[in-house]
Amino acid sequence: MDKLPFAMPDFAPGWVWLVGAGPGDPGLLSLLALHALRAADVVVYDALVDKRILELARRGAVLEYAGKRGGKPSASQPDISRRLVQHAKAGLRVLRLKGGDPFVFGRGGEEALALVAEGVPFRIVPGITAGIGGLGYAGIPVTHRDTNHAVTFVTGHGIAGEVPDGLDWPALARGAPVLVFYMAIKHLETISRRLIAAGRPADDPVAIVSRAATDDQRVLETTLGACAAEAARHAIEPPAVVAIGAVVRLRAGLDWIGALAGRVLDADPLGAHGRRDTG
Amino acid sequence: MDKLPFAMPDFAPGWVWLVGAGPGDPGLLSLLALHALRAADVVVYDALVDKRILELARRGAVLEYAGKRGGKPSASQPDISRRLVQHAKAGLRVLRLKGGDPFVFGRGGEEALALVAEGVPFRIVPGITAGIGGLGYAGIPVTHRDTNHAVTFVTGHGIAGEVPDGLDWPALARGAPVLVFYMAIKHLETISRRLIAAGRPADDPVAIVSRAATDDQRVLETTLGACAAEAARHAIEPPAVVAIGAVVRLRAGLDWIGALAGRVLDADPLGAHGRRDTG
Repeated sequence: MDKLPFAMPDFAPGWVWLVGAGPGDPGLLSLLALHALRAADVVVYDALVDKRILELARRGAVLEYAGKRGGKPSASQPDISRRLVQHAKAGLRVLRLKGGDPFVFGRGGEEALALVAEGVPFRIVPGITAGIGGLGYAGIPVTHRDTNHAVTFVTGHGIAGEVPDGLDWPALARGAPVLVFYMAIKHLETISRRLIAAGRPADDPVAIVSRAATDDQRVLETTLGACAAEAARHAIEPPAVVAIGAVVRLRAGLDWIGALAGRVLDADPLGAHGRRDTG
Repeated sequence: MDKLPFAMPDFAPGWVWLVGAGPGDPGLLSLLALHALRAADVVVYDALVDKRILELARRGAVLEYAGKRGGKPSASQPDISRRLVQHAKAGLRVLRLKGGDPFVFGRGGEEALALVAEGVPFRIVPGITAGIGGLGYAGIPVTHRDTNHAVTFVTGHGIAGEVPDGLDWPALARGAPVLVFYMAIKHLETISRRLIAAGRPADDPVAIVSRAATDDQRVLETTLGACAAEAARHAIEPPAVVAIGAVVRLRAGLDWIGALAGRVLDADPLGAHGRRDTG
C-alpha cells in the first residue's frame, strides 16, 4: 500500500466510513476498505464479513459485532445507528463494515441518514455485491450478450422477514430474463410459485449459491419448479444468492473454480439452440 | 500487500485473469486486481480504466489498449479474444482489465468462453460495477428500505449500438421501482419515451452520473420526461449511468462528496410523504 501512486483519503477522527467488504473472498476487498481497516479505531461489522478481513484491522482496534441473522426482523437497526453516532461523537474513527455493498439491500442509506441527522460526517466505500461477484465465483455472469440485456436484483425478505409485498410479480417475471434474489432461501417456495404463476417456465434454470466466494461455497443447479424442494433436500442455508434464467447454463463453460479442481469446461454451454438474443 | 494474513493465488504463466477494475476511483480496485497488476506480463485494458490504475502495473509489463468506443459496433471483439489467446499461448501472464465488473454488460463471458475453446486457463476477478459503486459516489443507493425491494440493470445498447430489442418495456417499467441504465446516453430519448409510454411517470426522478467515481464526476438531476433534453443541453457524454426512481431523491441526504465540499445534507430527503413501502 505504501507505494501506491495515488493518495488515499484521510480517515479523520469523528468520521464514519460505511464500507462494503465484498461477497466473501478477502481478495475482493477494495484498497480503500483495507486503508480504512488499517486506520479505524472501532470496526462495527456484520455477520457476513469474513474473519480474515477482520484480521486486517490495525492492532488495538475494537471489533464490535452488529450481526443480524437472516430471517429475523432487524430490531437492532436503530441501536446500530446509535452506536455509530456515539463512537463518532467520542472522536473515534468508526468503520462500519458490511458484507457486499452497503447500498444493495444493506441498509447503508438508513445508517448514513442517521449520521446526517446527528451531524456526523461520513464516507461511502462501495463493495462488490454477492449477486454479481458471488455469482461470478460460481461461473455465472449476470448478463451475457446471447441471453439478456437486463437483470433484476430482488430481496426475498421484507422488513419483518416476510416476502416483500408491493412486488409486481407478473412484471418482475417478465421484466428481465435474469433475476437474482438475495435472502431468498426461507421463502423460496413462495417466490418460485409466484414466479411460475406469473409466467416464468418451471424449467427455468436456477442456481443457488451459498457462502459465495468463500472456501465453503456450494452451488446447487436446479430449476424454478424444483428449487425449493432441492434446497430443502440439500439443506442449503443462508447466506445464499439465487440466480434464475438462462445465464445459469453458462456455468458449464465458466465454472473457473471447478476447472481449478479439474472440471472440463464446455466452450459452447448454451448450444446452438440455446442462443437467443432477447431483452 | 506483503503483510496480508491470507495468500493470494499464484498468477501463473499462460493464464488469463479477467479482472474488473471498478467504476473509476483507483481506491475501489480489489486486492486481487492489484496483485494481478503487479504480476502480469501484459495488460489488455479498456477505455474505461483509469490511468492511475494502469500505473500500478509492474515495470516492464506491456500495456495494450483494447478500447471500444461507446455507440459503435464492437467489431473488434473477436480480435480481442484472439489476442488474449495468443498472449497466453506465448506463455505470458495475461491480465484482461475491464472497467466495472467483467460480467455486467462487460462481455467477460464471451471472452472467457473463447479461452475455454482454446484450452487457455483463466480466473475471474469481479469488480465494482458503475451502476452500484458509481451511483454510490453520487450519493444514490440502488436500494433503500423505504423505496424499493428490487432494482433492474439494463443496457441501453444492443449488439449493433441500437436500443436492445426484445426488452419487454411495460414489464421493465413496472418490474422494479428503480431502473439503472448503462450506456444509455445515445438513446435516452427513445428509452425515456418508451418507459413513459409503458407507465412510468414523466416526473419520475432521474440522475445521470457521468464519469462516475472519477475527479470529473458530474451528476445531473432531472426527471424522466426531461432527461433527454437536459442531457443534451448540458452536453453530457458517455460514459454515464442513469438512475431512475425514488432513490434519486436520497441524494439530497447522501451526497457525501458534495458534503466534503460544503453541501448541507438533508436527513429526511424523502420527506414524510415521500415514503412508500413498495416493491
